[in-house]
Amino acid sequence: MSAIQKNVEATSESYSASFTQGDLALPPAKKYLVLTCMDARIDPARAFGIELGDAHVIRNAGASAVDALRSIVISEQLLGTTEIVLVKHTGCGMLTFKNEDAVGIVQKNLGAEAVSELHQKVPDFLPFPKLEKAVEDDVKFLKASKLVPGSVTISGWVYEVETGKTRRVV
Amino acid sequence: MSAIQKNVEATSESYSASFTQGDLALPPAKKYLVLTCMDARIDPARAFGIELGDAHVIRNAGASAVDALRSIVISEQLLGTTEIVLVKHTGCGMLTFKNEDAVGIVQKNLGAEAVSELHQKVPDFLPFPKLEKAVEDDVKFLKASKLVPGSVTISGWVYEVETGKTRRVV
Repeated sequence: MSAIQKNVEATSESYSASFTQGDLALPPAKKYLVLTCMDARIDPARAFGIELGDAHVIRNAGASAVDALRSIVISEQLLGTTEIVLVKHTGCGMLTFKNEDAVGIVQKNLGAEAVSELHQKVPDFLPFPKLEKAVEDDVKFLKASKLVPGSVTISGWVYEVETGKTRRVV
Repeated sequence: MSAIQKNVEATSESYSASFTQGDLALPPAKKYLVLTCMDARIDPARAFGIELGDAHVIRNAGASAVDALRSIVISEQLLGTTEIVLVKHTGCGMLTFKNEDAVGIVQKNLGAEAVSELHQKVPDFLPFPKLEKAVEDDVKFLKASKLVPGSVTISGWVYEVETGKTRRVV
């Protein structure tokens, strides 16, 4: 067992020993979803004030709304959420490369067969060159989608990994 | 401003006031990623023992490895992670419906244009009928992918929303 797997098992023991919230309902109690980045420096529950059971939390590389659309439709249409809080962040890895750079790294590390699988399954890494613009573009994408009804409230934010602050963009 | 947006702003004030971890590096310090569900009843940091800065956390509806592949490749190939901890959970919404049910709900709530956009952008909601089997299948999918080198350690788990326990499946 790896050290990381041992940590999961040890945490399971301690967390479950004092766990008292086993009767929470499946649909989020506060009917919202947070979409943010997978970045290791973000703890959404603490930084954005999410209590257990209150909100769906979707995370992917760059907090991409395009990538998250399947989860967003399930959250809204099947589980009744009516508000989206989209948070990208300073220092995001997605600001630092272009698609062709990433494809070159896969080619170098994993070879031609991997690149072929990449073109089929990951046609776009969805990097972005400007942070605030990317927040605005993703909010526009959601507002333009027929899959997100106009009654859904959408806001776009930037989390600062340097300060722990979250500021509104749109 | 909505109550949820007010909560984000108020939390930003209090969280940043005592924030002392503004110098964490971009790559995860412990070189691993956790893939789990967006479910509101899961707090990955507390339940799986993830310290700020240690691991990427990817979350989507059902903890789908297929859906997360873009983020996983970025995590491994661009940011150096070498271990995947995949955690699905009891009581998951993805166990409760089939694709045709979800398409029917979108048709009823949002109409034919939305269904047309759905077929184009979300061809599969990726539900699953059996929990442990779905964990095994996703681990197999990752192990079979040329985009995940054999040197990456992969484990599959189930988190119990009723007890707060995380148990190993594969």
